[in-house]
Amino acid sequence: MEPCFLTAAQAAAEMKAGRLTSETLIRSCLERIEARDPVVKAWLHVDRDHAIAQARELDKRPSMGPLHGLPFGVKDIMDTVDMPTTYNSPAWQGHRPTRDAACVGIVRHAGAVILGKTDTVEFAFNSRKAASSNPYNAAHTPGGSSSGSGAAVGDFQVQFAFGTQTAGSHIRPASFNGIYAIKPSWGTVSREGVHMISAILDTVGWYGRSVEDLILGALAFRLDGIDALAAPEPKGMRIGYCETPFWDQAEAGAKKAMAASIERLRKAGAIVEEIVLPAHFGDLAEAHTMIMYGEGRVALHDEYLRHGAGLHPELRLTVENGRGVTPRRLVEAFDLSDICRKEFDAIASRYDAVLAPASTGEAPRGLHTVGNWIFNGLWTLLHTPCVAIPAVHGELGLPVGIQLVGPRLSDARLLAVAQALQSVIDVNADERARILSAA
Amino acid sequence: MEPCFLTAAQAAAEMKAGRLTSETLIRSCLERIEARDPVVKAWLHVDRDHAIAQARELDKRPSMGPLHGLPFGVKDIMDTVDMPTTYNSPAWQGHRPTRDAACVGIVRHAGAVILGKTDTVEFAFNSRKAASSNPYNAAHTPGGSSSGSGAAVGDFQVQFAFGTQTAGSHIRPASFNGIYAIKPSWGTVSREGVHMISAILDTVGWYGRSVEDLILGALAFRLDGIDALAAPEPKGMRIGYCETPFWDQAEAGAKKAMAASIERLRKAGAIVEEIVLPAHFGDLAEAHTMIMYGEGRVALHDEYLRHGAGLHPELRLTVENGRGVTPRRLVEAFDLSDICRKEFDAIASRYDAVLAPASTGEAPRGLHTVGNWIFNGLWTLLHTPCVAIPAVHGELGLPVGIQLVGPRLSDARLLAVAQALQSVIDVNADERARILSAA
Repeated sequence: MEPCFLTAAQAAAEMKAGRLTSETLIRSCLERIEARDPVVKAWLHVDRDHAIAQARELDKRPSMGPLHGLPFGVKDIMDTVDMPTTYNSPAWQGHRPTRDAACVGIVRHAGAVILGKTDTVEFAFNSRKAASSNPYNAAHTPGGSSSGSGAAVGDFQVQFAFGTQTAGSHIRPASFNGIYAIKPSWGTVSREGVHMISAILDTVGWYGRSVEDLILGALAFRLDGIDALAAPEPKGMRIGYCETPFWDQAEAGAKKAMAASIERLRKAGAIVEEIVLPAHFGDLAEAHTMIMYGEGRVALHDEYLRHGAGLHPELRLTVENGRGVTPRRLVEAFDLSDICRKEFDAIASRYDAVLAPASTGEAPRGLHTVGNWIFNGLWTLLHTPCVAIPAVHGELGLPVGIQLVGPRLSDARLLAVAQALQSVIDVNADERARILSAA
Repeated sequence: MEPCFLTAAQAAAEMKAGRLTSETLIRSCLERIEARDPVVKAWLHVDRDHAIAQARELDKRPSMGPLHGLPFGVKDIMDTVDMPTTYNSPAWQGHRPTRDAACVGIVRHAGAVILGKTDTVEFAFNSRKAASSNPYNAAHTPGGSSSGSGAAVGDFQVQFAFGTQTAGSHIRPASFNGIYAIKPSWGTVSREGVHMISAILDTVGWYGRSVEDLILGALAFRLDGIDALAAPEPKGMRIGYCETPFWDQAEAGAKKAMAASIERLRKAGAIVEEIVLPAHFGDLAEAHTMIMYGEGRVALHDEYLRHGAGLHPELRLTVENGRGVTPRRLVEAFDLSDICRKEFDAIASRYDAVLAPASTGEAPRGLHTVGNWIFNGLWTLLHTPCVAIPAVHGELGLPVGIQLVGPRLSDARLLAVAQALQSVIDVNADERARILSAA
């Protein structure tokens, strides 16, 4: 098997055993990119020589940390000191920050090779779409705004990539691209040097190809309790499945993913019960929208003044408050989410994990859309950790995942549960590699 | 009178009337800096020629906005494209960002001359102190972390300067330096490009020498409702004075400032009543500490990895969790503040403004301290707008202010109330100019 097809954890084990070098791994990823990027278009910047030089340097050194020698793609709303940072904005082409975003610095320090910058919706907010396509069908979106990151990890071009989530920009692309993702609890990963939309929503996460991969990232970020993961058994585990108040928007793909996951979990001996959230959780979608536009208006004000008519119309509309945000509605949205956050923690604490849809279904056709975030926005607003796991293939042959959700700041415990359940829920891992190795 | 002694609003009016140019104003400020900086040490970077060049350029142009031609000092944790940004950290000397922080971009767009970078506590958090001294007595602190910004505006070296507040870093220096300040409602001013400590606490504000000055800044930032300020009368106004649950820490200065303000307000015909906050507000100091250290731990992780043993011991301790932050205590702190935020809004909505102490008293002696933030942290955590107004001189001859506080997102209304009350509360403005013009 070409090294680019390994999971990060497998590659790390191979390197540790002396059977693989970082340089070989990186060269394999670069070859895959070269072969596939004309179609998948995941990257805005890859510097082949610079990537190989980083890998060679790491091959000479003792291990720097859990990501030593492993490649990381960086969503292009994150500052990088050695690569351009454009936010996929026409106005910022060639922009060169003079320091790394904190999250980039942290994975570099843990030994990662920064492979390049991945395409994104402009400023990761409702505007110019990434050029990236879904690795399973180029006529379909990989989702967004973390479009290139999701597509690159899904297409076996890179083991890790950063995404961010303000509505559903991180977990939904994981579902669409057949990959794993963690959106950590709000506040556990620094957003310094990441272009902001909303202080209360924006969350940095990472993609991988197994829960073990996600754990390697969590070790680099030192998420609380990650050093002492207990390994629970699926048998007897209590899982609450939560269709959310937005289940009427579920398509065949989400229904299949949820039903299959529930069935597989029960077959593995887990106790699976339905969670019905209190009725006022149904107002979280509107609260989320109000906060995203209210905070987005502030966040984009400077870009609006800089770029004037050159700014994307949707971003201009946001700054001009075309969404009718008022102080009263904004405060009400904050207050409702505060209440629900506490209530959901109490509900989730009765279970080992909460199972929820990760997207409304398969990736929609067309690159003008990034899909519907309705099954993601509430968790972003509730600050919960979310772990996406691939579950099924839909009618169109595209992957669809689910997510496991936990109470705030239970990230390590949630990852341990996800690790125990990944082989129960994700039965198509080999199939995905087979399909895409032939692509 | 030398132009540097004008308030921003006065200088703007002079410029509008054709009696003052930006260049003349900036030259006056630069002369004041040259004369006083050896003692006050407010600045980390001033480029005389660059400041004059900006002013000349603005003198040639039609007005760009409410700050046209007025000088602004920028706290050196904020990125500037044309000046170094060091965070007052030995590790970042000479660092040159390639874009402005959003707040800097916004005031530039409104016509401000960026006069230079002001000294700050390293990373604005508990570490290496600014070299700045109090303009009224160089043996005393100007407060911090917005040390240089507070001292420079107080010493009549610049009309405006940015500060930030995570605990009491913005409002307390206003009290210590005899100046006006607004800490806007959380979330109303972008923090893009400002070194972060805490997503839920960090707030960008600005200093001025009158409420009208603060309003000019608020116009640049387009705070909600600022275009349509009503002008209330002090007579019949309802003011709630709130000693807070931490009144036992008030020194003679804070007691005098509060007593004098209450007396002056009553004399002006306002109805002044005491507000006693519910007992659980007393736990906000601990909640604030938990959140500041919990989020600070995440925010400083990257600096810790970069600089290792070179990082200030207090910052190292924070990252190493020497303060014993746990997920449970952090969640409890978030939940308590959510509850109090809503409760305080309800209380404050019954008044035109809430009067509260801005510092425990006069600036303490010594530059090893920046003073006690106990009367500031709760408002930062509650996300309320706060407007600082100078009130009295204490036993040592140093100024002490008070603050007016309102419910979340009522910034424009609070500024209108503050404008009506400034001449009632601040009876020493001429005295301050007299003292310092002789310094």
